[in-house]
Amino acid sequence: MTVVKLAEYLFKRISDAGVEHTFGVPGDFVLPVYAAQERFGLKTVVMTHEPSAGYAADAYARLKGLGVALVTYGAGGLNIVNPVALAYAEESPLLVISGAPETRHYRQKPELHHCVKNFQTQYNVFAEVTEAQALLGCPGSARREIDRVVDSVLSKSRPGYIEIPRDMVNQEISLSGAAPIKEERRTEAVSEAAAEIAGRLNSAQHPVLLVGAEIRRFKLMDAVVALSEKLNAPAVTSILGKASFPESHPNFIGIYFGHFGSTAVRKYVESSDCVVCLGAVLTEMETGGYTAKLDPDRLIQMTAAETTVGYHSYRGIELSQLLSELAVSCSTTRHADWTALRSTESPTHPAGSGELTVIGIIEELNRFLRREHIVVSDVGDCLYAGLSLKTDTFIAPGYYSSMGFGVPAGIGAQMAVPESRPVVLVGDGGFQMTGMEISTAVKLGLNPIVIVFNNGSYGMLRFVDQQRDYYKLPRWDYVSLAKAVGADGVQAATQADFHAALKQADKSKQLCLIDARLKNDDISPTLKRLTDHFRKKIRAATL
Amino acid sequence: MTVVKLAEYLFKRISDAGVEHTFGVPGDFVLPVYAAQERFGLKTVVMTHEPSAGYAADAYARLKGLGVALVTYGAGGLNIVNPVALAYAEESPLLVISGAPETRHYRQKPELHHCVKNFQTQYNVFAEVTEAQALLGCPGSARREIDRVVDSVLSKSRPGYIEIPRDMVNQEISLSGAAPIKEERRTEAVSEAAAEIAGRLNSAQHPVLLVGAEIRRFKLMDAVVALSEKLNAPAVTSILGKASFPESHPNFIGIYFGHFGSTAVRKYVESSDCVVCLGAVLTEMETGGYTAKLDPDRLIQMTAAETTVGYHSYRGIELSQLLSELAVSCSTTRHADWTALRSTESPTHPAGSGELTVIGIIEELNRFLRREHIVVSDVGDCLYAGLSLKTDTFIAPGYYSSMGFGVPAGIGAQMAVPESRPVVLVGDGGFQMTGMEISTAVKLGLNPIVIVFNNGSYGMLRFVDQQRDYYKLPRWDYVSLAKAVGADGVQAATQADFHAALKQADKSKQLCLIDARLKNDDISPTLKRLTDHFRKKIRAATL
Repeated sequence: MTVVKLAEYLFKRISDAGVEHTFGVPGDFVLPVYAAQERFGLKTVVMTHEPSAGYAADAYARLKGLGVALVTYGAGGLNIVNPVALAYAEESPLLVISGAPETRHYRQKPELHHCVKNFQTQYNVFAEVTEAQALLGCPGSARREIDRVVDSVLSKSRPGYIEIPRDMVNQEISLSGAAPIKEERRTEAVSEAAAEIAGRLNSAQHPVLLVGAEIRRFKLMDAVVALSEKLNAPAVTSILGKASFPESHPNFIGIYFGHFGSTAVRKYVESSDCVVCLGAVLTEMETGGYTAKLDPDRLIQMTAAETTVGYHSYRGIELSQLLSELAVSCSTTRHADWTALRSTESPTHPAGSGELTVIGIIEELNRFLRREHIVVSDVGDCLYAGLSLKTDTFIAPGYYSSMGFGVPAGIGAQMAVPESRPVVLVGDGGFQMTGMEISTAVKLGLNPIVIVFNNGSYGMLRFVDQQRDYYKLPRWDYVSLAKAVGADGVQAATQADFHAALKQADKSKQLCLIDARLKNDDISPTLKRLTDHFRKKIRAATL
Repeated sequence: MTVVKLAEYLFKRISDAGVEHTFGVPGDFVLPVYAAQERFGLKTVVMTHEPSAGYAADAYARLKGLGVALVTYGAGGLNIVNPVALAYAEESPLLVISGAPETRHYRQKPELHHCVKNFQTQYNVFAEVTEAQALLGCPGSARREIDRVVDSVLSKSRPGYIEIPRDMVNQEISLSGAAPIKEERRTEAVSEAAAEIAGRLNSAQHPVLLVGAEIRRFKLMDAVVALSEKLNAPAVTSILGKASFPESHPNFIGIYFGHFGSTAVRKYVESSDCVVCLGAVLTEMETGGYTAKLDPDRLIQMTAAETTVGYHSYRGIELSQLLSELAVSCSTTRHADWTALRSTESPTHPAGSGELTVIGIIEELNRFLRREHIVVSDVGDCLYAGLSLKTDTFIAPGYYSSMGFGVPAGIGAQMAVPESRPVVLVGDGGFQMTGMEISTAVKLGLNPIVIVFNNGSYGMLRFVDQQRDYYKLPRWDYVSLAKAVGADGVQAATQADFHAALKQADKSKQLCLIDARLKNDDISPTLKRLTDHFRKKIRAATL
């Protein structure tokens, strides 16, 4: 009979899934887990604040297939609820490990520090924002419980929660006994669905693939590219799914965002006789605030949870199997009527000396971005404008829309792909939430390029509502802040400045913050369409 | 029949309780509530990040009797869970108001942005960390629901949660109908308890009052001072209760913190023949990690929830009534044997040119503090050392121990008491979490003195465990950071420097940050005792 320590088994499972780093803030109830992690050989990344640890681990998860946040009880765990909710909403495989008081206290001492109502409080909170949860209170069931939660995170690409009482961390657990039973997949259903979908696709004249975030989450990008090539059909992505189909691929024609995106892309998708929606859950954001017009008669939806053709659904189908079967049974004989769409999205003007605009930033970035760059975006116009960037990797909270994601996620991204250099897009509002994590990046020797879209306000709110005092943001001296933590910083007030700033950042091996001081009242065309559309609704509710 | 708009009624209730400001970050689902608040005339205080809004509102609540955080749905609300948990644990009357999607979406559109699992998620999370909750989904019950939650916050001094769908904010609600029924209090129980307690007190030779946080929360400080004077008995406070008995009062003899506090105070309390524990819940922290020796035979415990004498308890007793009756029935003839204890807590050395120490900071502060100063502390040695400060107002998360409280709480404190000047004590770890809120203070024209206890590490963790890489903090240039947001900043590396820095801060009308660079390995005697005691436990769990 083989025995190992509980924490060792947990770190083994995590490490086997490809994880090399965890993100967190140490605190007394989790110290034994930190020590066990160090002994095991995983690297501890300490962030300045728990919300940032959540965002960093989420970004890491989106790129590596699993991310881990390691927090203390109460003041730590409850401070990471929002990033975990984000990961749930956007299907990111984030595992939260929390320390906890010793099991012997559970009955006797409900009033330990960091406790709220009782020893169930934190667990109950996490049950609301994770897919699977376990409290490892007993050595006999610990292995099974760890397997259950880790397997759930990996298979469902949604957050899981494991709570480890301080006296359980180094308990020995047995590895003997039967291996866990794998869920049976319904192969007959796969064949039936594949046959039906292939039938529709093969008879369609203008099929199009609408690719969502799950395709990247479940590492199905190659399969989808193969299907697109086999069909000789174009691919678009949703906004959360941006770059889940490589944008450098000739079959990629743009982003579908209902009323707010490119008109040409919209027309193509909405007049297609067969839209195959692949791994995109049609949320409010994915449908451009429900402005998308996707006729169910001509729509096939395949997600991890369910496959729907017209008005009927198949459940229990593995996306990867379905894609494999489709790659075999789909035909290739079709005329490409969409190639003209490929390059409609990037107007180019030379860098001028006029005030800096959002479009100006995007133009410069589109000239600058290379394969080594990963684009990481916060929420706001940086995201909506950023949709026009040509990139093969784009990470953003495009559905749940949690501000403050950008800078910490840039750290998670570069830890996940060390050979990359993240380009972080963040508004001044988002930067003021978590931007000081640039200090953590410096500490770790990372070198993202952090572009602060500085318009001195919560721009989206200002444009969707009206100018109000409480939408104004204090103007920080971002360049000085960068220097105060050991990073480079440069200000850009014109497009020419911005062009030069990018060049300077490119030469530097350090983190470089660009304070992009935007022309007053400047927003991207996408955000303009969005705020124009939603203004009526907000006004009606505001009176 | 009088009708008013829903939000107006809510703000009327809040305003009647003395609130003039609310704290938050605006976001789309809460914009109508912000607009309604502006029309009503309450002042909106926008912080940079929701956790800070929670801490600021908590501090405001501790000083004003009610504090309000105003947040958006999902990304806003779920980002404030930890501060609300803190307020629950430490009995702070914090009301959270969250915007929410329109009621018509609840059935149709579960996949709006900012949503997690469903429209219940956020409500369920808050049910775990608040005392009362309401979702205002119907005009007919809105008034009753608002009253229920606001009354609960005020009467129980614990957080409440109100969620307002966007289409309900300006719905008209009726104010006709019966006033809410007040809970009956058990006056016979009060008389019986008062007689019994007075009997014990009057026959005691060395009674002592152990005063906790509830006394300040329920505005009973005057009543407790009166009782102490009537009894001619000394008062000590718990650590969470620090300054719930005025420290400038001659009957105040120190803080009782079990094994870790002053030995003289400990001896006096533990040998007293009648310890009256007033408004202190005997948690782990309040009992010095359960090292307090309070013999139940000689202990009387009076809290908002229950009054216990020896081994029996009274429930449903209002603390204020019990204190009133005791003030009448207690006798005054007693010899004061404790007056020598009054000044045992402040050793004084002249400011030297040696490296700055924690004790040196406390000495200087004890010479500096005046009545106008409110001390606000974060977690860590700043708190444990800060227990030795002589002050009549001290705000700190002394039980729940949530780092990051200090700077935002300083803002809440000064908004609550505009004639005060907060002195904020914060470690570098806590500052790195939320310290950039100094920018918000500058924006509001506030001028706290922010003292960063800079030891380049999570000091408590380092001393309770051992030196490890992941306890090291990056050294920020705090003075430059202060200047980058428009505040003053000065560095102090010796006690003489620190003395001069305080003088400079005193002269300035602006926020002044003092980067107090501590001698390596220096900690306060209290933290030394604490970490020595807990090291065994941590080591045993860490292996």
